[in-house]
Formats: sequence, structure tokens, C-alpha cells
Amino acid sequence: MSGGSPRTARRIDDISSFRVMDLLARARELEAEGRRIVHLEIGEPDFDTPAPVVEAGRAALLAGATRYTPALGLPELRRAIANFYAVRHGLEISPDRIIVTPGASGALQLVLGVLVNPDTEVLMTDPGYPCNRHFVRLFEGRARQVAVHRDTRYQLTADLLRAHWSKRTVAALVASPANPTGTVIAPEMLAEMAAYVADRDGALIVDEIYQGLVYDCPDSTALSISDQVFVVNSFSKYFGMTGWRLGWIVAPQAYVRPLEKLAQNLFLCAPTPSQHAALAAFRPEVLAILETRRAEFRARRDYLLPALRELGFDIPVTPDGAFYLYANCERFGLDAQELSTRLLEEVGVAVTPGVDFGEFGAAHHIRFAYTTGLDDLREAVGRLRDFFARA
Amino acid sequence: MSGGSPRTARRIDDISSFRVMDLLARARELEAEGRRIVHLEIGEPDFDTPAPVVEAGRAALLAGATRYTPALGLPELRRAIANFYAVRHGLEISPDRIIVTPGASGALQLVLGVLVNPDTEVLMTDPGYPCNRHFVRLFEGRARQVAVHRDTRYQLTADLLRAHWSKRTVAALVASPANPTGTVIAPEMLAEMAAYVADRDGALIVDEIYQGLVYDCPDSTALSISDQVFVVNSFSKYFGMTGWRLGWIVAPQAYVRPLEKLAQNLFLCAPTPSQHAALAAFRPEVLAILETRRAEFRARRDYLLPALRELGFDIPVTPDGAFYLYANCERFGLDAQELSTRLLEEVGVAVTPGVDFGEFGAAHHIRFAYTTGLDDLREAVGRLRDFFARA
Repeated sequence: MSGGSPRTARRIDDISSFRVMDLLARARELEAEGRRIVHLEIGEPDFDTPAPVVEAGRAALLAGATRYTPALGLPELRRAIANFYAVRHGLEISPDRIIVTPGASGALQLVLGVLVNPDTEVLMTDPGYPCNRHFVRLFEGRARQVAVHRDTRYQLTADLLRAHWSKRTVAALVASPANPTGTVIAPEMLAEMAAYVADRDGALIVDEIYQGLVYDCPDSTALSISDQVFVVNSFSKYFGMTGWRLGWIVAPQAYVRPLEKLAQNLFLCAPTPSQHAALAAFRPEVLAILETRRAEFRARRDYLLPALRELGFDIPVTPDGAFYLYANCERFGLDAQELSTRLLEEVGVAVTPGVDFGEFGAAHHIRFAYTTGLDDLREAVGRLRDFFARA
Repeated sequence: MSGGSPRTARRIDDISSFRVMDLLARARELEAEGRRIVHLEIGEPDFDTPAPVVEAGRAALLAGATRYTPALGLPELRRAIANFYAVRHGLEISPDRIIVTPGASGALQLVLGVLVNPDTEVLMTDPGYPCNRHFVRLFEGRARQVAVHRDTRYQLTADLLRAHWSKRTVAALVASPANPTGTVIAPEMLAEMAAYVADRDGALIVDEIYQGLVYDCPDSTALSISDQVFVVNSFSKYFGMTGWRLGWIVAPQAYVRPLEKLAQNLFLCAPTPSQHAALAAFRPEVLAILETRRAEFRARRDYLLPALRELGFDIPVTPDGAFYLYANCERFGLDAQELSTRLLEEVGVAVTPGVDFGEFGAAHHIRFAYTTGLDDLREAVGRLRDFFARA
């Protein structure tokens, strides 16, 4: 191994880093120079972890809950998650099917590690969460990215599955609500997709990490439709526990043992203090806090969406949830990356260029994250107005 | 996907679960029936996380340190780890080369993900830590397990590398101290191996997760030998922080960026509260606690090793560190798995059969972990004596 150029595996060339990281670094530089930056690029809620969850974490530490747990997770946390499905969704899910993971990242890695053989394909949307295709690449599979348009609310549909499913396809991965578009898949469509995939002997993976963060439609889960889908969820977004690194899988029963084997080897277990803290996440007083936050996110969306449209951004689909607006900026005649850079440098507004979410339409889309308060959003809109008035 | 049999990727068939888990489950059953079991199978220190570290974790939670950190880790923790190398080993390591990971598991996964192409080989010992070969398999590489004997203290040597290195080999992975044998690689041998691997344009990965837990020889690191090795370490063992899931890599400078890209996608970041807690792990009062524990581990080894030899176990190599004794049980005329089962069922002593560490000699070796106090160890030895008196 020479001191200079690294000899890395081929997959590393195919895995891109997040462009937004460079933007964030530049934003920090500008802040260090005294500039005030409005951050609309960050995919992390601005709310702190709810105090009762923090307190449960502190109590667990004091009680010495710092050892390995079983690879599948603390039995009482798996039961608490199952109970949440019962209370919130009226579903009876066996705790045996629930696997606690280090974040949804760990969950996606386990599920894809169990499903993806080399050269097999996984269907997913473009635009979509960028790590998904990288997880597939990690296992020498191929992410088949399907361009999705406004007419399907940027989601896969049963028709799109039919059009793109091949002999190599082993799974389809959808997200509801989705990043970066915030759209939800209607239950009827999800049922149709689940049936199609089951017919093909494939797997349907449903990323529900923004579950709970919906503003117009009822909170839902793919588990209402089928016990043969893989559902991935997280304590990061709705529950406000990003840095704790905790998520979960609800798997078809037959896959629990393979997932457990892989989890034993990859992770040993999810962080123990986080698992104990999360036991408090389902308490009524915490859910009350989270519902207040949901209302605040809705208010932000309801302010920012029409304001951006008025500025000339094309946002044809009203997002149902998450905390993102995926905006077409074509009419400004600037490439999305150039626009992102100029917005940051010239008026101190940080956004994420479309390229971080795929290739299709990437050059003329940017993502706004409303993970900052209404005052900041108003400030940002004022700055954007100035920018376009000058331009 | 049918409801019954799962359609899993081929790698899942090649990844074995830990046999010790079944044994542990059976031990828990027996305990539930009121039997008292002496646990010598557990690869986790019995000591709690040092109180100042717990307190730092609690303070971090109170201060709201629960958000994502940079993928490479908290800058102040990377500096603290670099400083530890300076103070403890007299080495100047740039914090830029240090990557904080979710446990050593996350570290091994990142390093192998960056190095292993499909069908390339990684040399490692048999016996060894079982997850290592599974990580290589995960990336469609091949773990080339080299049978190691007492004559090399169960370690790879430069001669063994020469004998087994092929055109497909990209890396050699060694551990010092090793699991399950507890042996350390002498610095001169490590230097010879590093030079051989560098000549071959390969990578040398040194697992130092039991660093600090050595009893006869000075505490050492491969970083004293070369800045081109990959060192993997952990807060789990010496620092007593298993469930916190925190480890680190020291990488050759040219590999930091590829490792960062992979970490961004696989993990986002290591658990944030754990990172803040670990800042306290290097404080003098914590190191004083850890050195007391090291002395206790030494006392346990010094009791258990001669006692097992007297019972008839063949332990030809005195282990330098970790908290394991790897004992040949051939003279008892029982297969190691059968012996493990009978020891548990008949006298309530839980140990790990050799099969969990590979194939070579697995049928006539068991691992004793001295992760329990001297009283328990004496009790276990008494029970073993009874068992063999009866047999």
C-alpha cells in the first residue's frame, strides 16, 4: 500500500458523498466570519429530544444499563413498539417480528443485506434518499432508479413496478412519507404494489421513518395492508432522537432469524442507553409533545409552501408529510447547484441541491427543509425575494 | 415472497450465528428454574462503565447533546483519542486520521467495505473472532482462514503471510491481544508483517480492541510501527463501555475520505451521547479505575490458568491479555460442543465451544472467559473438578 493514493474497492467509486455536506461546511465558514445563515438544508428536526425521553436515558445510565442487549433488541422495547402499533394503528404485531436497530440506517442495511445478491436489482424512486442506492451497491446489487414525476406524486406505482420489474429484481423500496418530496403513498396503491411484488416472489420494503409527520392525511402504516412487507422505522424524526441512533424493522416472520444472524455480526446490538430511553417515547406525555411539534411542522409547511410558489418555485404536488419541499427552480434559469451556491453566498440561505437525491430532474430542483422556526422561514423568504429581485 | 420459507441472499447461508447464544439461552432457562450458573462464556467485562464516564453521559444528555455529529465523529473526541496515543504511547497521530465508529463492529465493517472487492481475499487466523470472516463475506470477498498453532502463539507471522498470500489477497487482519487466545503479536513480528504487506501493496488491519488489557508485556500499538496500517479499537473492553457502541479507526491518511463517504452512508454517525460520555474516558481518575480493573483481570488469569491446567486442560500458550483462556480438552475424550453442553447441564458452568471461533481444532477447544470475579472462578473450578471426578 503506497502512502499516496488509496487502493479502494470499486464500490467506493460508486458511492457519492452528500453534496450538502460541502454546503454545510461552507455555511459554517461564513458563520465563523460573522454572517448569519438561515439553514433550510438540514434533515434533522430542530426540536430537542422530549424531556421525559432524556430523563429516561439519564435514569438508565444511573441504573447501569450500559451492557450489550440481545441482538434483536431489549424485549421490553420490542413489546413497547408492538403496543404502539396496537394503540395507534389498531394492529396486532407480534414483538417477535420487531428488530431494534442502530437507526433506520442499520435497519436498511440489515434488510438489504438479507435480500440482495450480487447483480440482483432493487427498484426505487429517483429522486429518493441517496443512501438507499448505496446500500444496494454495498452488497454488489444494482439500484434500479425509476424516474418519478409529479403525476404519481413522485412515488412508485403498481404500473411503474410492472414496467421496471425484471428477472433480476428482488425487491422494491418505497418511502412514505418520502424524502425529498414529502409525499405519501395511498393505502390502495400500496396494497396493489404489495400484491404485485408478492406475485413476483419479491420483497416490498417500506421506509416509514417519517411516519407520524403527516399533516393532511391520517397517519398510516404498510403493516395494515400486509404482514409480508418489510417496514423500516426510526426514533429519529417523529420522536426527535436523531443522535441516539435507534430505529426498527418489522419483518415477515420467516425473515426474523436471518436478520438476527446478520445483526449479531454487524452490530452486536443497538446502543443500550438509547434503547432504554426509547421506552419512554411512547408515554402519553411524550406523544402530547410530539403532536404539538407535528402541528408546528404543519404551520411551517403551510407558510413556506405558498411563499415559495409565490416567489416562482414550481411545487406542483403538495407534500403530505416529512419536513421537506421539493421545488423546481427551472424558471430562474439557473442550475440547481449554482442556485444553491449563490443563495448561500449572496443571501445566506442554505438549501440542498437536487443532485443529492438522484439524477432525474436533479439539475432543476432544490430541497427546502423546514427544520427551523417560522421566524427563520420568514427571514429566508425575505432573503430569497431580495435575491430574485436583484437577479 | 411466500409466507413460509424466506428467500434470502446467499451470503446469509454462509454467515453463522454464535453457538454461544444458544448456550446462553439455555443457561437463562436453567436459571429461571432456580439453578445457579457460573458464566464463563461472556465476552463482556463484568465491571460497570466507570462512574465519571456515566456522569459525563448524563451531563451530555441534560445539555441536549442528542443530535447528529459529523460522520467522522465529534472533533473533540477525535482530538482526545489522538492525545491518548500521545500520552500513553508517545505517538503523534493526527486527529484527522481518527474515525469514530459505532463500536469496533462498525470500524471493521468500514475498513473491509473500503478494501474488499468481490472474490478478493483477506487473510486471518483460525481460530479468531468469527465476525471477521462474516464481514468479508458480506462484501462478497473471501476470508482465507489460516490455521494457527501454538508454535506461533496462535498468531499469523510473516512466514504464514508469505505462505498464504495470493494474487487475490488484498489484506491481512490480525488481532493483538487476540480473541479467543489472548495472545499478543511481538512488535518485531508485526513490523515484519507490515513490511511484507506493504511490499505486496496490501493492507494490514490490526484489531486492538483488547488494547490496555495486557498483563505481562507493555501495552503497545501497531501505530508505533507504521502509519500505513489500519488500527481498529473500541471503548467496549478496556474502557468498559460495551452497550454504548463506540469504537474507532486510525487509518492511513489517504483512506480517511473513502472511509468518511462510507460512514456517512452506513451510519450517519456514532451514537452522540456515547461520544460525549467517552470524552471522560481518558481522564486520570478513570484511567486509575481501569488500571485497578486490569490488575483484577490479571489476578483472575493467574488463578484460573494453573487451575485449569491442573484439571487436565492443555493450555500450552500463556495468554498475554484480553480475558480469555483457550483450552484444549482433547484428553477428556469429549467433543468440545458435547463437553460445553454437559458442563452447563450437569454442573452449571457455561463456556464457549471452539466452533464459534473457526474450524481448526474447534472440536477439541473451549474458551473460558474470566469476566466474572475470583469467587465465581473458584466455584467454577470446584464444579469442573466434580464433573471430571464423576466422568
